[in-house]
Amino acid sequence: MMDSVRPRTEELIAEKLDLERLLAAGGGNTFRVADLGCSIGPNTFHNVEHIVQQVRQKYNHMMMTSAAPEFQVFFNDQVNNDFNALFRSLPPERDYFAAGVPGSFHTRVFPNSSLHLAYSASSAHWLSRVPPEVVDRGSPAWNRGMIHYGSAPKPVEDAYRAQFRKDMGGFLRARSEELVSGGMLVLVFPGLPDGMLHSETQAGSVIYCVNLSILDLVRQGVLDEDQLDNFNFPMYFPHPREMRELVEENQCFSSIELELEVVSPESTWLQQGGVGLRGWAVAMRAGMEELFARHFGGEEILDRIFDGASQKIAERAEVIMNTKCKELPLLYVALQRK
Amino acid sequence: MMDSVRPRTEELIAEKLDLERLLAAGGGNTFRVADLGCSIGPNTFHNVEHIVQQVRQKYNHMMMTSAAPEFQVFFNDQVNNDFNALFRSLPPERDYFAAGVPGSFHTRVFPNSSLHLAYSASSAHWLSRVPPEVVDRGSPAWNRGMIHYGSAPKPVEDAYRAQFRKDMGGFLRARSEELVSGGMLVLVFPGLPDGMLHSETQAGSVIYCVNLSILDLVRQGVLDEDQLDNFNFPMYFPHPREMRELVEENQCFSSIELELEVVSPESTWLQQGGVGLRGWAVAMRAGMEELFARHFGGEEILDRIFDGASQKIAERAEVIMNTKCKELPLLYVALQRK
Repeated sequence: MMDSVRPRTEELIAEKLDLERLLAAGGGNTFRVADLGCSIGPNTFHNVEHIVQQVRQKYNHMMMTSAAPEFQVFFNDQVNNDFNALFRSLPPERDYFAAGVPGSFHTRVFPNSSLHLAYSASSAHWLSRVPPEVVDRGSPAWNRGMIHYGSAPKPVEDAYRAQFRKDMGGFLRARSEELVSGGMLVLVFPGLPDGMLHSETQAGSVIYCVNLSILDLVRQGVLDEDQLDNFNFPMYFPHPREMRELVEENQCFSSIELELEVVSPESTWLQQGGVGLRGWAVAMRAGMEELFARHFGGEEILDRIFDGASQKIAERAEVIMNTKCKELPLLYVALQRK
Repeated sequence: MMDSVRPRTEELIAEKLDLERLLAAGGGNTFRVADLGCSIGPNTFHNVEHIVQQVRQKYNHMMMTSAAPEFQVFFNDQVNNDFNALFRSLPPERDYFAAGVPGSFHTRVFPNSSLHLAYSASSAHWLSRVPPEVVDRGSPAWNRGMIHYGSAPKPVEDAYRAQFRKDMGGFLRARSEELVSGGMLVLVFPGLPDGMLHSETQAGSVIYCVNLSILDLVRQGVLDEDQLDNFNFPMYFPHPREMRELVEENQCFSSIELELEVVSPESTWLQQGGVGLRGWAVAMRAGMEELFARHFGGEEILDRIFDGASQKIAERAEVIMNTKCKELPLLYVALQRK
């Protein structure tokens, strides 16, 4: 969870979390939290600590007579996540019991009615797979020469959207079964303002520059055309409207908040690489590197791809700086299990 | 859990497990199992499947009207266990939700009253550390030149026993808090018949041969004397009487079974290495290898240690074959949380 959305979560826990009902529903005196798509930390630990602290504080203010709840936190991610690294960096002074849960959050990973609060930071835009049509030469949605849907023809975007609908549908269905009645689901992940195209954002422009750099390397014979055609980013950035539809279709949740928060890149993790376009390039590499390495190979080729991309970004600086959406639009979704 | 003790566990679940009470106590409809000291599988999965299957079967026979319980299995081991390997080899067709829990089972690793059945196979004899006195040159319990208490002076054995009492005390205390009322704790691990010394068992003799081999390597200058003096096996094999005392001191459990089962080595995992003394030597290496490698170094030195040990075993074959206890004595402990 980015710092910018913390106040929202604090407010949510303080005002909307029915702690008494939750603890009664869950049985015992354990408050169970799931961090979905946790990766290896340390951000994931900061998020957890923040939530545990807020819930504990709320409990203390209520001056309930029962014993204070204990917290059990489940760190979930794909089975190929490095759980060893995660476990070894768990804060030794933590005041919760930790567990790791391997498996795709697009399916059930917890028992029925066993969670009180589930949240997912910067993960829910990951698809369970690249939509098969976009790497199928026979399909009208074949995404030839491109690595994402942002600057691609409409059938490609449609294929991505269909995959997201399926995945987020599965995600919400699984969570509706795993959360106790009254339980909270909080998602924070990149989205798009309603009506805006991905190509109209700075992020979209930057991905396009990466794409152009790879095309150059194909032309130079450094990379194979097939390699490029078989690669697509398994990410989709939905509009609030799309998320609202999916929540309504699911029927099990009341929507507490479902909003796009527009965060200035300068105020976020983009700072790491310095503000402005250089910041985007650095952040982009940090986010994409692992996926690229798995598909295209080692450090050397990554350097060539991202050096080329930086050059493209510099060449197109003026256009990019003037894209419609210069900010980082984050979807903040807070739902309550009916 | 070794195959030989499975019928005991089946009987225990069929006859002593109060499923209705347990599910009511735990809240929700989840039956929670912990595997303490799980290592990386695959044995751990066989054990879990066996338990889940038995509980499910019992539930089906009861023809209860409520929905069938779901199972959540917590695989626990030290934080340096390879959980990545464990998670990757989880059976894909499992009918339980899996979680990994890093941390020492000598302390709390689960919330209060959150487990219905906890078991530990071949792990509870591991101490949390080498008793500090046995590597302290100034102590009367300094275990000079020896790697275990089996053939060592009495103060060494006393130090090991004190450490075990402390560790098993912590283990039982933690489990008494984590198990729901009526919950079961099942432990299977190597022990000793009451009144018997560890040196009077074949296992003890075999460890002694390993010790002699290391002493040879020290004399030859291959290993350093300090290296030997600083190494001790962090394992203790208790007598049933000692376990009974610890359970009574804890006060939170009713003892259902607490017995030594004497298993013929030929019927167990010792078969892997062939029956008889060769089997012992192979099994011993498999069990000790990792610990030795961490302390003494790589493959080459391990080969020299265990080749030397095999020779010692062959030389003393007649004596070893005639030790008082030729079998593998296993403690089977089944307790119910009051």
